[in-house]
Amino acid sequence: MDDKYTPLTIESLPQRLGVVSAITDQIGVEIRNWEVKEVGDGNLNLVFIVKGRKGIIVIKQALPYVRVVGEDWPLTLDRAYFEYNALLRQEQRDEGIAPAVFYFDRNQAIIAMECLSDHQILRGMLIEGQLVQGLADTIGKHCARLAFKGSDLFMETKNKKEDVCLFQKNHELMGITENLVFTDPYFNAEMNNNTEGLDETIKILRDDIIMKTRVQDMLKKFTSNTETMCHGDLHSGSIMCTETSTRVIDPEFAFYGPMGFDLGMNIANLLMAYFSQPAHRENELESTKYQSWIVEIIEDTVYAFNQEFNKLWNTERKGILYPKSLFEDQGQSSEHGLKSVLKDIWRDAVSVCGIEMHRRCLSLAHNADFESIEDISLRATLEARNLLMGRELILNSDSIESVGELSSIAVKFNEKAV
Amino acid sequence: MDDKYTPLTIESLPQRLGVVSAITDQIGVEIRNWEVKEVGDGNLNLVFIVKGRKGIIVIKQALPYVRVVGEDWPLTLDRAYFEYNALLRQEQRDEGIAPAVFYFDRNQAIIAMECLSDHQILRGMLIEGQLVQGLADTIGKHCARLAFKGSDLFMETKNKKEDVCLFQKNHELMGITENLVFTDPYFNAEMNNNTEGLDETIKILRDDIIMKTRVQDMLKKFTSNTETMCHGDLHSGSIMCTETSTRVIDPEFAFYGPMGFDLGMNIANLLMAYFSQPAHRENELESTKYQSWIVEIIEDTVYAFNQEFNKLWNTERKGILYPKSLFEDQGQSSEHGLKSVLKDIWRDAVSVCGIEMHRRCLSLAHNADFESIEDISLRATLEARNLLMGRELILNSDSIESVGELSSIAVKFNEKAV
Repeated sequence: MDDKYTPLTIESLPQRLGVVSAITDQIGVEIRNWEVKEVGDGNLNLVFIVKGRKGIIVIKQALPYVRVVGEDWPLTLDRAYFEYNALLRQEQRDEGIAPAVFYFDRNQAIIAMECLSDHQILRGMLIEGQLVQGLADTIGKHCARLAFKGSDLFMETKNKKEDVCLFQKNHELMGITENLVFTDPYFNAEMNNNTEGLDETIKILRDDIIMKTRVQDMLKKFTSNTETMCHGDLHSGSIMCTETSTRVIDPEFAFYGPMGFDLGMNIANLLMAYFSQPAHRENELESTKYQSWIVEIIEDTVYAFNQEFNKLWNTERKGILYPKSLFEDQGQSSEHGLKSVLKDIWRDAVSVCGIEMHRRCLSLAHNADFESIEDISLRATLEARNLLMGRELILNSDSIESVGELSSIAVKFNEKAV
Repeated sequence: MDDKYTPLTIESLPQRLGVVSAITDQIGVEIRNWEVKEVGDGNLNLVFIVKGRKGIIVIKQALPYVRVVGEDWPLTLDRAYFEYNALLRQEQRDEGIAPAVFYFDRNQAIIAMECLSDHQILRGMLIEGQLVQGLADTIGKHCARLAFKGSDLFMETKNKKEDVCLFQKNHELMGITENLVFTDPYFNAEMNNNTEGLDETIKILRDDIIMKTRVQDMLKKFTSNTETMCHGDLHSGSIMCTETSTRVIDPEFAFYGPMGFDLGMNIANLLMAYFSQPAHRENELESTKYQSWIVEIIEDTVYAFNQEFNKLWNTERKGILYPKSLFEDQGQSSEHGLKSVLKDIWRDAVSVCGIEMHRRCLSLAHNADFESIEDISLRATLEARNLLMGRELILNSDSIESVGELSSIAVKFNEKAV
């Protein structure tokens, strides 16, 4: 393959990738039988599904700019390199959840990976009101395994610091989060947009110095707590499901950050699905019923996270932190340390959750849960509930002790005429 | 100069470095006039003072092992590279405090730098009861400037992440701190030693699960909060003074870590000087008087830190954190953010302080403040005060709100018959 970066097209793809045995091994060598579709509906990349005699594969290629904005916003091709590295680590740390990787070409910013063609994006399923068995368990465990196994609780500290170093170079994508998630929602930034009718709510948020300070406290952690490798973008658009299977895609925002980050972003997106339900269901009963299921998913996700983290703490703790030499080997319990770590994780998760709930309604990249609601006034009402709950989470992340408390707050805002 | 690493000797030094113009510019080219002394009394390196016709210079060379232990404990030569990089950043961030650097050779692990021959190591001066004008102001400001200007409050985030990456590679020296400071004191580690008569006190510390957990909470921050570049070893052996001048040397332990780290380690070493005074002064009055001076230095150091940090916050805040766009530009104060950051810094400083007080009496590298006390029973008594105060600091780092409270605790333990 030519070294100079060239974007793939439906036409050029077979010619260019037909010579790569790692790819033809998967889908066969007869390139004239390959069916190529471009399906990239994300914000950043080209995504092709390629079907051959032997099988089907996804080819993802980064573009040198942000697809959703255009060439005016250049963006490093090396995000494919970080995605590739994150996919390998996800596979190491929790096998079978991320797509299998078959091939990577750094110059061309191309990753060939497993096609999850029988899976759908979770966000769409939540809008449609579909149930997924095992969703909470898979995501809770995945977050716990990534958190634990990328941290100094598990890794040899030398290797961990080398890995931190690798992912610190993903500063362009971290920069997107630093701006779009933590900063833009809280002032009149150029790329912001919001639903009509939210002015009053937005004023409450932007006038709240204490809340904005707490958001910045969390940004400080985002940018300088390299506790573990996070997926970095674990919203319901990065999760693909069938009725019984859950997989996680698109880790190009991967970074070493707070152990609670992925959990918090995940819960936020479930909460946005929750608040948007009244606009998507035929009647109130259906809506309430499906909302209850979402609450259950949130609670079970946190439960699965805690259970798995607890298990790993007791069986796989071999890093420098809270070492057995100081506790178990002295006949003492390390339970207090586990509680302290889980408390920090939960507090950060609650903060991140509130912030993610804000940015998805106020900053650049909105989500379909709300965006697909055609009745603007209803959309604004539901978004306001979401925004004000976000504020409550940010303000009280130190005192909300359990996911039960968090879901009570959701129910309270859902019932409120805002 | 030959590329293969070879330790300098008094005999070989002139021949080997006489060809380096950056060095001969400082001390003259006539190497037969050079007077070379080896003065390394630290734990790690060769240090030569070289005097020529034109001037005097320090040549520091890393050894491939820990000098104080011997060749059994190999240690990367690249610590000279980290020291060199830290010296450059100290100079950038607070001019004229670290020694000026004239020359660096990475292969030979050699740094040629300004000789502070009219200065003495602060620790010795504290043992002798000497006063230093401006000590608190210089160290407080230096810690504040390093903390602020190496953080995302000031640096462009891309450059900061690159710098984090550079210093993450200093993992061998970070590893020494991770073990000797945060872990070894709290169990019967191989390299530990302690004064006779401390068994009861040591039992109190090692039985205290809550305290040990808090130490590990702080280790988590040490190893994964890359908030700023810290000197990393700012005890009174890394400070050189005259009656009116204060300089900071030996930043080879530099790392990106918590903004309160240097401040905490510095206070700990002042507190150990404080507790050891009764053994070093002729009479109680002298001892009390000099102790009051040390307390004043501690309080003024924190005052200078806060003042300087406050000033930098208001005049030099141009990084991504707590940006003016969210506060000042909206006609809102960012004071709440400043308080939040200073509160985190102080809490971490108090924790680090308590931990440093422990490791200097229990782990490998003790300090002369206590070590030079010949009366073992008196030494144990004074060390016990220090150890128990350390415990109180670690346990209460969240609630000790000011340096005034901290010094009251010191006075309390000093007056106690332990």
